[in-house]
Amino acid sequence: MSLSEFELIQQFFANSGTPRADVRLGVGDDCAILAVPTGKELVVSIDTLVEGVHFFKGTDPALLGHKALAVNLSDLAAMGAKPAWVTLALTLPSVDKDWLTAFCRGFSQLATAHGVQLIGGDTTKGPLNISIQAHGFVEAGAALRRDGAQLGDLIYVTGTLGDAGLALQGAGSMDIPVVAQSRLDCPTPRLTEGQALVGLANAAIDISDGLLSDLGHICDASGVGATLYIDDLPCSQPVRDYIKKNDDWSLPLSAGDDYELCITVPPEKQVEVRQLAMSFECGLTQIGRIEAASGIRCLLANGRQLQPCFSGYEHFSTES
Amino acid sequence: MSLSEFELIQQFFANSGTPRADVRLGVGDDCAILAVPTGKELVVSIDTLVEGVHFFKGTDPALLGHKALAVNLSDLAAMGAKPAWVTLALTLPSVDKDWLTAFCRGFSQLATAHGVQLIGGDTTKGPLNISIQAHGFVEAGAALRRDGAQLGDLIYVTGTLGDAGLALQGAGSMDIPVVAQSRLDCPTPRLTEGQALVGLANAAIDISDGLLSDLGHICDASGVGATLYIDDLPCSQPVRDYIKKNDDWSLPLSAGDDYELCITVPPEKQVEVRQLAMSFECGLTQIGRIEAASGIRCLLANGRQLQPCFSGYEHFSTES
Repeated sequence: MSLSEFELIQQFFANSGTPRADVRLGVGDDCAILAVPTGKELVVSIDTLVEGVHFFKGTDPALLGHKALAVNLSDLAAMGAKPAWVTLALTLPSVDKDWLTAFCRGFSQLATAHGVQLIGGDTTKGPLNISIQAHGFVEAGAALRRDGAQLGDLIYVTGTLGDAGLALQGAGSMDIPVVAQSRLDCPTPRLTEGQALVGLANAAIDISDGLLSDLGHICDASGVGATLYIDDLPCSQPVRDYIKKNDDWSLPLSAGDDYELCITVPPEKQVEVRQLAMSFECGLTQIGRIEAASGIRCLLANGRQLQPCFSGYEHFSTES
Repeated sequence: MSLSEFELIQQFFANSGTPRADVRLGVGDDCAILAVPTGKELVVSIDTLVEGVHFFKGTDPALLGHKALAVNLSDLAAMGAKPAWVTLALTLPSVDKDWLTAFCRGFSQLATAHGVQLIGGDTTKGPLNISIQAHGFVEAGAALRRDGAQLGDLIYVTGTLGDAGLALQGAGSMDIPVVAQSRLDCPTPRLTEGQALVGLANAAIDISDGLLSDLGHICDASGVGATLYIDDLPCSQPVRDYIKKNDDWSLPLSAGDDYELCITVPPEKQVEVRQLAMSFECGLTQIGRIEAASGIRCLLANGRQLQPCFSGYEHFSTES
């Protein structure tokens, strides 16, 4: 099969996602041309997935197409943004039509579900590397940020924590709960929830590296600390079973890849947020409080403080 | 050395380029927050450089930092856009502070020269892969596109063609002219020229894959063909020497990596364009004409038609 780079992009990706009126020119020129609506700010996120680092060799390409886009949309969700456009830089060891077709299916289905259009891309030869940039809109000045947490804010998370970590930990085993594996392979960006929390949350982040690490980013950026009430962490039954069996809280505290949102809410908006949360299919759970003392303290219901506090996953951090 | 992903991005890239008032929030959150000026459209380009494909292992990282950004800015130049923001997705086999410092120097110097701010990035571990997305502005509706060429348009190129190809062809040899090597390693995006041609040119593209391939994109997108007057192609003395010695026009016709602009201009704007071109340090040369018959004909001064017409570099195109 001979398929030029240009044909390749055109064939598989030109019509990905939802055609949008604000795209003046999409895939096929040196640049895309785009119109940002008046009164909106543009938010931009970029994330790369590398084979052997972020996913195993042989991962189902349809799931990979979904996940590569989902982790970027999750960043938009954490800003309270509405997604609009994405670009895809795809480095492939070879042209495999079946692989590309499946990857594009996973990618396009998620894009279409959120009204997102693919507006540009680059396809090159080399070790498998998927870099996606997502663009979205927020009302000017309204974006949720990491640096907005205030003393006394209540800390909430969407969904459940530790499922993806459970799947990752058991990789290769037959005993992984299907639901946990699905959370790892096919995460749901919490876009509706993030957008609904604009005007209510003081700060937000998505949990990609683990709760302690990502809440730590909020605390660092906001110049505050936090206490977490560990027994309140929302966990699925398989994760609860794991914690009980091993007396080990690392899954909900420091495993990454769940892509839930962690937000902080001022006490006076607590009632409104709880009301809102009743419309969240994934749920929203209060898990702690923002405090002046730096660092994150992990309290158990029996008053004992959990030690050590695990840290989240960081690339390169194990190098010496 | 232990250096987390987060610290790495912050340390090397947080202050890259020129701080801009339209960046509401730069590197360090889930997304950057940006304000597009009223009346402008946003143009977006993405390009990936892979070690062993786009550059040799061991390439000077400062030159690589320059080139990775330059090829993206060149795409903006081809739209007539003014650059504003860039993101950088960098996949690295290991953390090498010296390499990163040099890469960042090359990247930042070019960014600063064009008033561009780095607004986001992702740093991951894996085989060396550099993916950059550039954002710029054009007046609404004014962007230069590939699909605007009209019958009778004159075809022009900036600068000289084939220098980068000459360097690439002689890779490893000591006989490469320094100027040619510099064109390959350290291309100049024709931003001033592209912006000045808005309102004058009907179509534009940057020559990354070779003149025939890239002019071919203009012709395909515009539903036209072209004749090139081969003896008029602007070439440096070393490239002229090569052509004469080998009776081979492939360097200016189909070698890539020159990043000059190829534009088409309606005859009634020819005088104005020639006037404008006197301010172009790189020069602007008329090389042919847009015609109705599809395909690109290469005419020599003696009336002979050059055969075969070489095609530009396309990834994967040699696979079977």
